[in-house]
Formats: sequence, structure tokens, C-alpha cells
Amino acid sequence: MENKFKRILYGGDYNPNQWPKDVWDEDMRIFKDARINSATINVFSWARIQPAEEVYDFQELDEIVEMLGRENYDIVLATSTAALPAWMVKRYPEVARTDYEGRHHKFGQRHNACPNSPVYQKYAKALAAELAKRYGSNKHIACWHINNEYGGECYCEKCEKAFRVWLRKKYQTLEALNKAWNLEFWGHTIYDWDEVVLPNALSEGLENDKTAFAGISIDYRRFNSDSLLGNYVMERDAVREYDKETPITTNLMGTFKGLDYFKWAKEMDIVSWDNYPSYDTPWSQTAMRHDLMRGLKDQPFMLMEQTPSQQNWQPYNSLKKPGQMRAQSYQTIAHGADTIQFFQLRRSVGGCEKFHGAVIAHVGNEDTRVFREVKQLGAELEKLADTTLGAVNEAEVGIIFDWDNYWALEYTSGPTVDLKYVEQIHQYYKYFYEHNIAVNMIPYDADFSKYKVVVAPVLYMVKEGMQEALEAFVEKGGILVTTYMSGIVDQSDNVHLGGYPGPLGRMAGIWVEEIDALAPEQTNSVVFNDGEEAAGRLVCDIIHLRGAESVGNYGSDFYAGSPAVTRNQYGNGIVYYIGTNMNEDGLGKVMEMAAGDAKVKPAVEIETGLEITCRKKGGHKYYFVINFKDDEIEMPDCFAGCKDMLSGETIRGGEILSKYDVKMICVEERV
Amino acid sequence: MENKFKRILYGGDYNPNQWPKDVWDEDMRIFKDARINSATINVFSWARIQPAEEVYDFQELDEIVEMLGRENYDIVLATSTAALPAWMVKRYPEVARTDYEGRHHKFGQRHNACPNSPVYQKYAKALAAELAKRYGSNKHIACWHINNEYGGECYCEKCEKAFRVWLRKKYQTLEALNKAWNLEFWGHTIYDWDEVVLPNALSEGLENDKTAFAGISIDYRRFNSDSLLGNYVMERDAVREYDKETPITTNLMGTFKGLDYFKWAKEMDIVSWDNYPSYDTPWSQTAMRHDLMRGLKDQPFMLMEQTPSQQNWQPYNSLKKPGQMRAQSYQTIAHGADTIQFFQLRRSVGGCEKFHGAVIAHVGNEDTRVFREVKQLGAELEKLADTTLGAVNEAEVGIIFDWDNYWALEYTSGPTVDLKYVEQIHQYYKYFYEHNIAVNMIPYDADFSKYKVVVAPVLYMVKEGMQEALEAFVEKGGILVTTYMSGIVDQSDNVHLGGYPGPLGRMAGIWVEEIDALAPEQTNSVVFNDGEEAAGRLVCDIIHLRGAESVGNYGSDFYAGSPAVTRNQYGNGIVYYIGTNMNEDGLGKVMEMAAGDAKVKPAVEIETGLEITCRKKGGHKYYFVINFKDDEIEMPDCFAGCKDMLSGETIRGGEILSKYDVKMICVEERV
Amino acid sequence: MENKFKRILYGGDYNPNQWPKDVWDEDMRIFKDARINSATINVFSWARIQPAEEVYDFQELDEIVEMLGRENYDIVLATSTAALPAWMVKRYPEVARTDYEGRHHKFGQRHNACPNSPVYQKYAKALAAELAKRYGSNKHIACWHINNEYGGECYCEKCEKAFRVWLRKKYQTLEALNKAWNLEFWGHTIYDWDEVVLPNALSEGLENDKTAFAGISIDYRRFNSDSLLGNYVMERDAVREYDKETPITTNLMGTFKGLDYFKWAKEMDIVSWDNYPSYDTPWSQTAMRHDLMRGLKDQPFMLMEQTPSQQNWQPYNSLKKPGQMRAQSYQTIAHGADTIQFFQLRRSVGGCEKFHGAVIAHVGNEDTRVFREVKQLGAELEKLADTTLGAVNEAEVGIIFDWDNYWALEYTSGPTVDLKYVEQIHQYYKYFYEHNIAVNMIPYDADFSKYKVVVAPVLYMVKEGMQEALEAFVEKGGILVTTYMSGIVDQSDNVHLGGYPGPLGRMAGIWVEEIDALAPEQTNSVVFNDGEEAAGRLVCDIIHLRGAESVGNYGSDFYAGSPAVTRNQYGNGIVYYIGTNMNEDGLGKVMEMAAGDAKVKPAVEIETGLEITCRKKGGHKYYFVINFKDDEIEMPDCFAGCKDMLSGETIRGGEILSKYDVKMICVEERV
Repeated sequence: MENKFKRILYGGDYNPNQWPKDVWDEDMRIFKDARINSATINVFSWARIQPAEEVYDFQELDEIVEMLGRENYDIVLATSTAALPAWMVKRYPEVARTDYEGRHHKFGQRHNACPNSPVYQKYAKALAAELAKRYGSNKHIACWHINNEYGGECYCEKCEKAFRVWLRKKYQTLEALNKAWNLEFWGHTIYDWDEVVLPNALSEGLENDKTAFAGISIDYRRFNSDSLLGNYVMERDAVREYDKETPITTNLMGTFKGLDYFKWAKEMDIVSWDNYPSYDTPWSQTAMRHDLMRGLKDQPFMLMEQTPSQQNWQPYNSLKKPGQMRAQSYQTIAHGADTIQFFQLRRSVGGCEKFHGAVIAHVGNEDTRVFREVKQLGAELEKLADTTLGAVNEAEVGIIFDWDNYWALEYTSGPTVDLKYVEQIHQYYKYFYEHNIAVNMIPYDADFSKYKVVVAPVLYMVKEGMQEALEAFVEKGGILVTTYMSGIVDQSDNVHLGGYPGPLGRMAGIWVEEIDALAPEQTNSVVFNDGEEAAGRLVCDIIHLRGAESVGNYGSDFYAGSPAVTRNQYGNGIVYYIGTNMNEDGLGKVMEMAAGDAKVKPAVEIETGLEITCRKKGGHKYYFVINFKDDEIEMPDCFAGCKDMLSGETIRGGEILSKYDVKMICVEERV
Repeated sequence: MENKFKRILYGGDYNPNQWPKDVWDEDMRIFKDARINSATINVFSWARIQPAEEVYDFQELDEIVEMLGRENYDIVLATSTAALPAWMVKRYPEVARTDYEGRHHKFGQRHNACPNSPVYQKYAKALAAELAKRYGSNKHIACWHINNEYGGECYCEKCEKAFRVWLRKKYQTLEALNKAWNLEFWGHTIYDWDEVVLPNALSEGLENDKTAFAGISIDYRRFNSDSLLGNYVMERDAVREYDKETPITTNLMGTFKGLDYFKWAKEMDIVSWDNYPSYDTPWSQTAMRHDLMRGLKDQPFMLMEQTPSQQNWQPYNSLKKPGQMRAQSYQTIAHGADTIQFFQLRRSVGGCEKFHGAVIAHVGNEDTRVFREVKQLGAELEKLADTTLGAVNEAEVGIIFDWDNYWALEYTSGPTVDLKYVEQIHQYYKYFYEHNIAVNMIPYDADFSKYKVVVAPVLYMVKEGMQEALEAFVEKGGILVTTYMSGIVDQSDNVHLGGYPGPLGRMAGIWVEEIDALAPEQTNSVVFNDGEEAAGRLVCDIIHLRGAESVGNYGSDFYAGSPAVTRNQYGNGIVYYIGTNMNEDGLGKVMEMAAGDAKVKPAVEIETGLEITCRKKGGHKYYFVINFKDDEIEMPDCFAGCKDMLSGETIRGGEILSKYDVKMICVEERV
Repeated sequence: MENKFKRILYGGDYNPNQWPKDVWDEDMRIFKDARINSATINVFSWARIQPAEEVYDFQELDEIVEMLGRENYDIVLATSTAALPAWMVKRYPEVARTDYEGRHHKFGQRHNACPNSPVYQKYAKALAAELAKRYGSNKHIACWHINNEYGGECYCEKCEKAFRVWLRKKYQTLEALNKAWNLEFWGHTIYDWDEVVLPNALSEGLENDKTAFAGISIDYRRFNSDSLLGNYVMERDAVREYDKETPITTNLMGTFKGLDYFKWAKEMDIVSWDNYPSYDTPWSQTAMRHDLMRGLKDQPFMLMEQTPSQQNWQPYNSLKKPGQMRAQSYQTIAHGADTIQFFQLRRSVGGCEKFHGAVIAHVGNEDTRVFREVKQLGAELEKLADTTLGAVNEAEVGIIFDWDNYWALEYTSGPTVDLKYVEQIHQYYKYFYEHNIAVNMIPYDADFSKYKVVVAPVLYMVKEGMQEALEAFVEKGGILVTTYMSGIVDQSDNVHLGGYPGPLGRMAGIWVEEIDALAPEQTNSVVFNDGEEAAGRLVCDIIHLRGAESVGNYGSDFYAGSPAVTRNQYGNGIVYYIGTNMNEDGLGKVMEMAAGDAKVKPAVEIETGLEITCRKKGGHKYYFVINFKDDEIEMPDCFAGCKDMLSGETIRGGEILSKYDVKMICVEERV
């Protein structure tokens, strides 16, 4: 693999256009103090750089680029197309979106362009081309940043027509479409492509987030993701025409539901994303999101945005405590980031993000706690130079994450409204996180043979080819863990007939006859073979063994004593099936069996409560040891005597890490 | 009375059109095993049988009818008009509905036709006629099923115009309309029929379920119920033209708020309904709904739909436990059903109901618990043959249920938002249910003289003629129980002036001066004359005796010591008035007095916790004894020695019923 | 000051137009018994008095006026323009409003006219003129009442165009507008006035009550308040043309968010308002609202509406207990009212307010508790005659209340969603209320020099001139108390750069570096210098002393030990700054220091739990002593021997007041 950058980009969103010139000089002085070496510019300036349909005005942007170049910044240059200029909406109202309620919008907010608007496409593409023509050869441009946080939906007539074309291309015949969507149900059979309507509150939509025909709604989501991806590709190609080398990205948003990021990543030179945990987000969830973002291309990524301290758009925007931003930044690098970028460098004076944290606060100077922390981190990163750039995160465990599944599972009507995809995946991820076992978040069509263990929680939708791939993986000795609500439907959301879990049944050695749903006030329990018990909630599969053995049985209800968790030898491998949503102890017990069967190795054998991660490069292992717990924790003995790359000091035996303390250790890799 | 059917119809919704032909044969084989003898077909096939405006295609339906006929099924033939074909909405967008928010809908979902659309009317009627012409003489057609679960509202311009016509017919003059709706309030007086607008979110609607003018909104509900009823009658008449004999129905939904079912039932040959209790619905509420559905025509009814086990559209769709479906089915028969039909016979492969339970599960064979339970019940019902068909449920107690009241009470602004009509009625029903006292749910204009006790909870709206009818009933010795929030308004939602409870005041012998509202955290209490106390909530009437005696007084607040519950001798009868929403004990105490005064007889004298119901036919009494409690319960001694018609075994003294156990006993009626 | 009236107006809304004539006579008889001397008429009669575009019909109104005149009533004559006649909406649909969702409304409800509709303006103005022409010289007209409870918003195209004109007048240039709204953010820069769109759900609106650009949304609120005020002024001027003397008002609604009442009051001859506390509204909050209404003009006001007992539109509409209405009425007078008027005199027979309390209940006679209480109060007020009319409420404490602040604070995105303006202000008001210290609620541009203490809670927006005015106030010895979330933005919602609390920083002697947000489950604490502790919630400012001293420090988190509350000597005065939302004890402690520094005098020195208020007139002090507590409370000794003006009896030493007891005492003022 080749490194995208020469140093860790350290900087973030910078909007000098919102400020008078004298502030620019002050910015340069202060940023230098913090070792800031990069700035993301031109993110929301369309109206400024194209003040009218026939006029471009790059004078100010030239000055900004020139200033940053002079200071040797790595510039991340955005294309400004994520918010329409007012004049365009006024002249061409069609460029605005029509929402889920069927309301056509006026000018306002951002992410407001209909992706299938020819007007939008024309001007967005032209702008990207103009920018590339002008700045494509500037050696300070380190990365192109197309648009910003793509997302949202449009239900206008242009999209409806485009949807029909998309469908015709996919299904070829109306017969195929009627079958895929099972339109015979409720007599929805169509006889003309033009009878297709977009699924929103005026058609198939039920309440806000359900649908009468999941097949239609899932296809709409695929189409919408593709439409926005089309916008991205269009701008990317326009840029590439004038700049053949600089990496091109757009900033993603972790487990954001709207877009199939695995598909997107194929079109991106490098993945970048914006990390905004809440005050109560578990650190394991943030770690999982990093791993997912890394997993999109199985390559290092850019941390395009994080806040130095506070957000503004969450209900309760707590400050980051001293050390927290630094710990969060190293966690990011530990999980594969090659950049640390903030939103934003200077706190804005007005608009709805004026309370969003920034490197320079409203006070306007460097005499703040937050700045000092940014500065400390800057000095450390400068010292690291290119050490970790391009380093690899290796994992023996893969967890399948699939946007089709995400959509399908959350659209489904029954058996319970409480199944949330990300929450479900996170429960399984967490086990490995807490045991310092590296995980790759992988797509449904990954090369499973790279892993000892593949975990496929709530693998509701099993698409064509997956059965064969997973069976082959297990046959050759792989360990597969799957759960309730798996193997139910195919790619069109039609049920795999013949009994649950459908295509997974043979390898799991079971048949699930019924799926009970438990209300929030109800629990069952799992009694393991060793007598230990764990609570089960949400759903309870009633399982019949078809070759598998039971690992634990239900403790109550009419199916008490029947298998709740099973284990099946299949070829040289093993399939675990978990029939109910167990509490952490129960789940951990099963994962431990699976990890044990596979002889999966943690980063460090001793469990301490510290997050310990490892990246490898050039024959070296770089360990990141972080304390995210409230208690003080002792470093594992194995690191005693090693040097902490951040402080330069040698780690003592029994050395204590306080909350948010970080150590980074380099160890020679033994082959 | 004449029986509608020759045997208990046992079957349900069947959609072979959604399946390949080889599945049809398998269905027939499996259904036979379960003694299924009936299928409801063609419920949602409009697009299939009329693929274009000028084309009918009955080939597949012919095959289905032929197959079922060959197997000697009693076919319930639906008309398929409850979901528009896509082509119709595309060609005639006006057929779709305009919702409460004023949004005109596109193609999607079901129950989507504007009832006043001439296009819809034309094609629905034509389709019904075509079906009747083709299948009307087929002897296997046991019942016609018009449309499906009529409901929903439309606020389009066509409906607005139709509403004006409906009003002109009802009120004749604008003066009468202005007076009925009290339009002088807020200066809403109108001078032209065309000034009337439908009451939705764009006009008189307040929030989602309130209104500035209840008079308008209640009339709109009456109009909308009539509009949909007009659709039903139109199809019914079209069918009747070609089939003079087969009973015609449409499936109702218990206490569904949208339609005045008493008015609908007059147009139906037999009532049918769909029974979908939630996992936490009290069994007494299900019983009440059965009694209401029976009460619509005071005749046995069809259970058109229930699920063999699971639903999909509730938040938490629990399985039915072993025995539960059977117990629920016998409860249904006990309360007056002559059929047991499921939705559906085979679980569908896609669409939003794919997780709805069915006789044949996704596994596709008969080797399931649910199938075995269906089969056991089928065998039992086959044995019963026509024994209970047409049998009568007799009751000495009538509870008034009135849709106008339902609407008016829940529209009213003040004194509290917590008055829910069905919940209120159920509280009073429950007393009788738990004492094995049969109840008829009766309309406001019932022949009260058939009853010893009439209960009229929250009889908010007292329409013309009711005062006279109720006074006559009491004068002749009847016992009337009524409550807070009764006698307040007339049929137009205008207050009966002169003091609450208006027309009920004279017979109740009281005057209610004020109605206090209690917030959820507040309670008062009722101190009965014997010193016992019961909590009172929701509202507290401040009552003055005008001839009545106090049965219990308030325990606190400034009206402590004043009457909370009263009893008045009126003619040869008695009127009880309950001034506050008491807890179960307090309410039970008053109901016991009333039942005692009337010497009402329970099905069986001993209270055990079992549900005991009785139907009569041909000189025989059929007792249904069901245990819906978690505990084991002893059978009443009076049944010792009798034969259980279901098991064929003799009931022992002290015999125990476990949860969901059912006994059915035949006893000779002593004249 | 001159008295507006000759006696305390005692009466209220009266709608004989909704009743037959025989009821009118009965009304007159009953009202006389209650000493009712005033009626507010013609509030919602537009459709009646103008039955068609070209027709006025005042016959009935003439009769009503004539009847009331004959009985020597002081008539409050409304203009009926708060609800459109149906014919107008039918003929000119544009007169109706377009709502926040962008939906244009049909006929219905009230407050339904677009304020910028030329049609509405034409006919409303013409009607007001017609009324004034006809009744302007009638000596019984004591007050004109324009429209009714102005409020609500319109987002139609007419309003959009009017908004652009309003903006052009305010900002003159697009440059100024772009800067004020910080439109460079998200590239919203506009180049043409016609690019401005109204901020609703289709443009800048986020969820229901947030916005992407607070600057735009605040200006829209100002514009909308001005638009409605324009409607008021238009009618007022039309009336004034024909009636040069009679006071003109419209009824306001306390802390209603929609309108800038300080601006409105400038156009009103006398403030009037409608007081509708809920069953759980603290009495201190009602007192605060009275003080605010009095503060609008710093003059006595009219209590235009209160209910004799019950409301209908709240969730739980409890009865007023015996004595409660009387106590509430005297509280109203105590805080500055010169009238006591009810909504309404006779309870209506239909429409959504039929359960709203009235002097005459649905029973229709005077034999009710509520009537007897109205009658007792009437007798007392008649005895008071003009004693208190025009009397002054003096206060040494001013609390700033500012609608711009209200809007800006609640629009702001971050740091927490839990900041509610009225709730915040009330916390500080409550301290003074409980210590019998009179408060004036004052505008942001008040003459602060009238006060010893100025309290400015959450003074988020500090507009031009305020810094100078507040500094001058403090320099001359004033005590200023301000809090977290103060000094943040200017009048355009752009941040005061240079560090929080911006323009308040110098006088407060502090710099706030960061603002932490606490989730509802989190607390910090304040440890005062004397060791006492108080809980802190919501937000915690991290404060640096810049001359101030710390009064209490934080007890926990990383900023434990840093100042939470500060005190700064500035010139001859002192500024207190409160950095976190303390509980009542903590807040009281700081307020006590401030009140102590200023030597503020309570109405009566001894604290008893009684509400004690004082109005002055003609050398007399009128004390109002009211017990709003559940317990019995002893009168302060200082009143022993004085005469209670209401009962005429002498107050004994140690005399006990039960709940809702009221005493009114006149004392000679010592100069």
C-alpha cells in the first residue's frame, strides 16, 4: 500500500471567508503555535465563488489558497456543492428537494439539492471542473473533498422518473419487478413502468420509518444512495480530468443509515469521516465506527472532522474533559486514521453552529484550555511524523455490516419494533473490544477466508452467493457466529422458504420453527450446560436441532428446556447460532467459546480494562494503550521497559494510567 | 332464526394467486389434514382480475374456485375492491384519497379509494357485478365478502361537495345547520351551503384528534361512515342482482372508531369481524368486542379473521401459547360465532404482512406446533358439526354502546383529556364478565324492555327519544346505571340546558352542579354508607340530591361529604348514578347493588375465575367453561358428571382446569 | 396619571347573540344581583354584523348596546375581527393563513387571517370604522377592544413579500443583511432581496422550534409581531377617527411568546390581558405575569379575562376551590389591575369552549356556588368603588424581560435544549415574591436608574446601548445580577467576540472561557465561601476572575474549585454573576446578598408565607395580604388593629388566615 500523505494532516475546516482579513493573519500565527499543518477550505462557498449563473469569482479563494500555500499547509479543497446558492433555487426551484411528506422545499439549510436535477448536476459538475482547472496543479492541494456529508432523500418527480429507469435497468421486465416486490400482495401488480411511485408518506410509507412494501423501499434506498453517489462520481471525474493524482474523498458519517458506504468507498481514493460521539456514547461504539470506516476499503482513513471540545447540535453538549480529545484522537489513529482534523479551526460568529467547538474560541486568542490541548497534540503528532502513516490494522475476526441488511431489518413489520441494527451489531463488537481482540468490519461479500471468526449478527437478508461463501468458509475451518433474525429474506426482502434460518440452516444444523417476541417488560433466560444463566430479551427463536448440539436452553415459557444457543460442527469449522438477545454475560460466554475454538489472539493477553490496539508497518508493531475508564489502571507488565513514543519516557513496571492517559509503544515484529 | 351455514366454517384467507401451482396441491393436502372446510379468496386481487380498464381476466380465479369446489369448500368470495389497482390511480389520480393533513395521495397501500369518487364507484360496482354474474350460482359460494375492513377518511373536494349534499338533506335549511353546529360561536355563521368545508387540519381540526366544532366533526364522521356504507351497499346490491340467496357481509373490527357499525349491520346479512387482541389485551375486552359484534344484529356472527399464533403489526408480536388459540376460538364461539376463520392459511413470502401468522408457516409443511393446534381444533369443530350453529346468547343486562357517543365524548374539549370511550365502557362490562353474567351490547335505540339492567356509562350524548325510552324502561321496573359525563349534550353536541345530567336528571333524582377534573396524580375517594372506601379518579361530579339517596359520599376536597354515588327509585325501577371513576372495588360494589336489585342471574352461581358462558338452541344449553387465568382452577361442582363435548370425557368432581383448558357441556333446558 | 375608568369594571365576555331574547332579560336580572357593571361584547360576530361583502347589519348589536346602556353598563366593545367570516374565505381564499408546514388553510377556527392580506386589511379596517362611527359617541362605551388575543403566524407569499420590504427598510443594503444574518455561513449569501424566503419547515426551520439561521428566524418573529401590530394600529386609528377619547386596547396573554408586547404596549391606551393559570401553575408565576403586564406601560392594567372556575382547553381542568377565584382576583388587583373581567358571563351551549367556566352555568340560574362567589366579590368591589383605581405599584427591583431574548435563547442550537426563557426568569422572580419584595418587569431599554437592583437572567442577547446603560447603572451604585448564557450575542444573534459574557464582562469582572452542558441526570454543586453547598444544573460556566471575587466555587468535575458565582465592585455598584442554574437555596443565597447590598425593602419585614403586596395612591398605602398556602398562617403583627377593608372588621393580633383568605388594609403613607 502507498501512503496518501507525507505527514499526519493536522488541522480541519477553516472558513476565513467568514472573517475580515486581519483575522486571517492572526489565525496563521495561532495555528502555527499548534503545529497545524492542514486546512479544509471552500466547504460551503458556492454562493461566494459563483455569485451568479454566469459568473465565477475566485479572488478570495485564490488569496486563501495562496496564504495557506505560503505557510506550507496541506490543503483539503472542497467543492462547495453541498448547499445550493440562493440564486439557483430562486431561478430554478426544481433544484430543491421534495421531502418524505411530499412537500417541495424552498431555499434553506444545506444538503438541499435534488440529486437527479439536471440543473444541479450541470452546475455542480461545472464548478468542480472550474476548481480543478484552477487549483489542480497546486502542489499544496493534498486532497479533494467533494461536497460534504452526502445524505438525505428527495421524492420529486424527477427522482420518480429516474427511479423507473434505475428499476428497468435492474429488473429488465415487469414480471421480474412484480415478483421481486411481491406485488401480488394487496393487488399491487403493475403493468407499466410508469405506475411505479416513490415510497413516501403519500404512497407506501407507514408512519415515519415503516413501509407497506419493504422491497420497494429498500430499492428506493439503493436508488437514492446511487443517485447521490452519481453526484459524487460526476464531480470526482470532473476533478480528475484536471488533476490526475491528488486523492479524492468525501466525508462519511460512520454508521449513517442513508448510504451504502461499501459501495461508495469503491469510488473513493481514501475514506474520510466525521466522528461526533455524544456525551454518553460508549467508547466501544466509537471504536466500531472507526473500524467500519477503515473496513470500507480495508485501508487507513482520514478523520475529517471531530470537535476539539463541544458540539452544538446534540441535546446536551458537554465539554470534552481535559485529555479526552487527545485520547479520542489516539483512539482514532489506533483504529487506522492517518489524519486528525477538526471542525473547525475558528468558532463561527453566527448561524446554527456558532456553539460548535473550535480550535480558536470566540475569545479569539490561544489562551484557552482547549487550545492548549490542541497544541500539545500537535506537537506530539509532529514528532510522530510519518511513522504510522499507512500502517495496517490486522484482525482475525470479521463482523459483517451490510447496509441492505440495515434497511431491511429496520423496515420489517414484526416481530418487534425494538430491533435496531447498529445497536445489535455493537453488542457483538463490544465483546472483542473489551478483550483487545482486533476486528474488521466487513461487507457481505468479503473474502471470509482472511478470518478465523466471522460474526454475522441479525443477518436478516442473505443475498445470492452468501450461503455458498459462508459454507465454504466454515467447511475450511472457519468459525461462524450468527443469531436470531438471520437468514430470513433474500435481496428483495422475500422470505427464504423452507424454514428459518433459510440458507444458514444447513451449516447451523438447526431449524427455527417460531420466533417469539418479548415486550420490554418481559424476559426469558438461557441456562447453559454448565448451569450458568443469562437473561434473554427481545426475541426468542424456538429451535430444533438438526445436527447441532445445544449450548444452552431456555429457562422459561412453554419452550423452556429447548435450545436457545447451538453449536454445529460443519466441515472443519463450527457454526454458533444464538437464538435470543442475551445480556452481556451470556453473550460473552458464547463469544468466548467461539474465540476459543478459533484460537483468536488478542493484542495483549492480559485483560485490564485498557483499550489496547495495534497497527503494523515496516516490521514494527505500534501499540496504542488508552484508559477510557474512570478508574486508574495498571499497564500490562509486557510493556514495562518499553518507551512511550509520546512522552519519550520509559514505562515502569506497575505504571498507572489515569483516565484518558495514552501510551504508544513500538515493538519489533517477530516473524 | 335461520342458520346461515350448514357447518362451522373453518378456514380463512387464502391467496393461491401469490403462489405457483404446485403449492396449491400441497395446500389442499395439508388443509384436509386440518379439517379446513372453507377459504376466503379474492380479497386483494383487483389488479389481477382486471388488469386494465377494459379487461377482466378470471382465468386464475376460475381455477381457484374450481379447485376449492372440488374439495367441497365453503367459499367466502371477496370482491377485491379494498385496494385500488395501480393503473387506475395512474389514469385517474382522483380515485386516491386526500388525508387529514390535506395531502392528496398517490398509489400505495390499501383502503385507498375516495368513497365519493365516481370513478371508484363505477369500477367497484362493475367488478362486484361481474363477479356475481360469474360465480353467483356456484353452490360452493357460502358467503360474499364485500371489500375488506372498511375504514379511513378522505378530505378531497369530491367528498366536500358530497358532504354539502348530505347536510342539505339532513338539515334542509341553513338556519337549521347554523343552529345545530352553534355557528354563532366564533362567528362561523354561514350563508351558503358552499361555505361548508370538511373539518381537517386545514380548517376546524385541533391537533390530531380534537376540533373547534364538535358538531361539524361528528357530522363529518357520520357522513364518512355513510359514504363508505354507500360503497358497501352499492356492491352488495350489484351482487344481489345476480345472487339472490347467498349471505353478504364485510369484515368489521370490533370497537373500531371510524364507522357506526350499528347502522352498517342493518345492511349486512350477517356480521363478520376480525379479532386481533394484543399480548396484553384483557380477555374481558375481547369478550366485550365479541358481544358487541353479536349485538350489532343480536345474532350469531362470523369470526372472519384471527391469527393462528402471531401478528406482525403490533409493537410486540408474541406467540400464542399452546392452547391459547384454541381457548380464544372457543371464547369466540361461546360469545356467538358460527365460524372460525384465520388470517391466513399460508404465510406470505413478501410484503408487510410476511410475519403475520398462518396455518402453514414459511417452512411450508404441517410439522409445526401451530399447525397441530389448528388440526386439533379442526377435528373438534368437525365433531360439533352444526350443533351450535345459530344458538342464542341470552342476557338480562344490556350495555349501551353508541358510535355517536364515542365520537362526541372523545372530541370534547374539557374537562379532561383522559376520557376514552372504549376504556370506560370496558370497566363496566368487566364486572359482569367476572361474575359470569351475560351481557348484550346494545344500541342507543334498543328495546330496553328486554333487559333487567341497562348500563349506560358516559352517556354523554342523549339523543332525541332516549329520555322517554329510558324513563319508560325504569318506570316499568328496570334498573338503569349511568355515570359522570352523561346527559350532557344532544345529537348535535349542544348542551342540554337546565343542569346536568340533562334529560337523565329527573329519573336519576339528582342535579350535578359542577364537574371537577382530576389530574393523573390526584385522587378523591368514595366513602360508602357501610364505611367501605374506594378511590375515585378522572372526574368528580358535585351532586345535589333531588329525590335520590346517597349511596356513598366523597371523602375529600371541598365537596367531601357530598354524594358521589346515588340511587333513585323512579316508578317501579331504580336509577344508579356514579359520579366519579371508581376503582374496581368501588365500581363492583355499586354494580352488585344494581344486579342485586334486578335479581340478575349469572350463567353459574359460583364464582371461580373461570369464564363461563352459555348459548341456547333447541331446548339445550351449551356451556363454555374456559380458564384464562394463570392459576389452575377447579370446575364448579354443578358440572360434575356432565360430559365434556370436546374430549368426550365425563367431568369429575373437583376436576382441575389449567390455563387455556376448555370444557363444553350440554345441558337440557328446564322450561 | 389619570384613571381610565370611574369604577372597577366587573363583568366580562358576553354573547347574547348566541341566545334567544328571553335569555337576555334573565341575564340582566342575574348580573345585577352580582353587581356586574360591565360587559365585553361583539368579540366574534363579524359574520353576523357583516353577513355579506356589501352588507352591514347592526340591528342586534344595537339592541345589545341599548340594553346594556339602559342598565348603566360600562361596555367594552370589540371589533370582531379575530375570526374571519366564512363568506370572505370562500370568496377570497388568500385571506386565510399559510402555516409553518407551508399549508394554505381553508375556513375554520379563529386567528385565521393573514396579517398582510390586503383583503383582510380592507375589511377589518372598514368594520372598525363602521363600529366607531355608529357607537363612538355612546357614553356607555368604556373601552374599545380591537380584535382578540392576537397571535399566530403566516408564511404565505404575501407575507414573504412584505417581509422583504420590512427587511429593506431595516437593513437598507444587501451587504448589511448578509452580515446581520451571517449568510456567508453555509454559503447562504444572497444577491437580490427576492432571494429571501420565510423561515419555515420548507426552508430554514429545523424540527418544530429550531432554525438553521436564528438571525432570520428572529427577524421573522419581529416582522410577524409588527405585521399583527400593524393590523391593530390600523383598526385603532380607524376607531380613533370617530372616537377621540375612549381608551383602546387589545387583550394580551402574559408571557405569550409570539409578540413583542413591550412594543405593542406603546400603541395601546391601556394594557389588558387574559389570565389562565393551570391547576399546577405556581402563584408566583401568575404574580410575575401580572407584573409583566403592568410593566408593559408601567401603569395599571385591565384583567380582561379569567374564568370564574374552570377552563376547558387544558389537559385537566380542575375547579377553582371555594375562595380561590376571589383570592386570585385580589392578587390581580394587588399587582395593578383596575378591572376584573371574566370569560364569560354565560356558558355557551356548543362549540369547543362549552365547558369553559362562566358566571351563569348551563343550569341557567344563580343557584350555584360559582355564582355566589362571583356575587360576593361583586359586592366587595362595589364597596371599593374607585379607591384603588390608578394606584401605583412601586418597586426597587427590576427584572429584565425581553422578547428578542426569549426568541433568541430558545432558537439557539447548543449548549443544551433545556433552556426555557420564562422558566429561567421565573426562578429569579420567585425569590423576591417569596420575600414580599415588589418587582417591576422591565424592558431591555428601561430607565435602570429607577431601581436599586436590576436582575438580568439569561441575558443572552445584549443589544446596542445596553452595555453603556447597564455600566452606567452600576457605576452609580446599582446592583446588577446576571447569569450564565448572558452577553453572548448582539441583536442579530451574532456573537460578541472577545470572550463571554461579552459586553457584560468588564462590569462583571470575569471571563467565561467555556460553557459546560449538563444532561438532566447530571449535577455539579456550588460550595459557598461559608461552606454551604447548593446543586447546580443545566449549564456550568467556567469562569476566570478579572477583578471579581468568587462567592462560591464548583464542587466537582475538572473545574472543581473554580468560581461558580462571582461578585464584582464596579464604580459604586456591584455585579453578581451566577455561572450555573442553582437550586432554590443556592439562588436565594446569592439574591439575598444582592438584596442586602442594595438594602431593598420588602412590603413587610416579617416573612410569613403570605403574599403581601402594596399599591399606593393619594398618600395611602393599600396592602393586600393573601394566603396561597395550604397551611393556616398568622397575620404579621404590624397589621394588628388595622381594619380589613373587605370585611370591615378590625384585624386581631395573631389573627389566622386560612387558605385563600384575603385582607386588604389601608395605611397612611409617611412621607
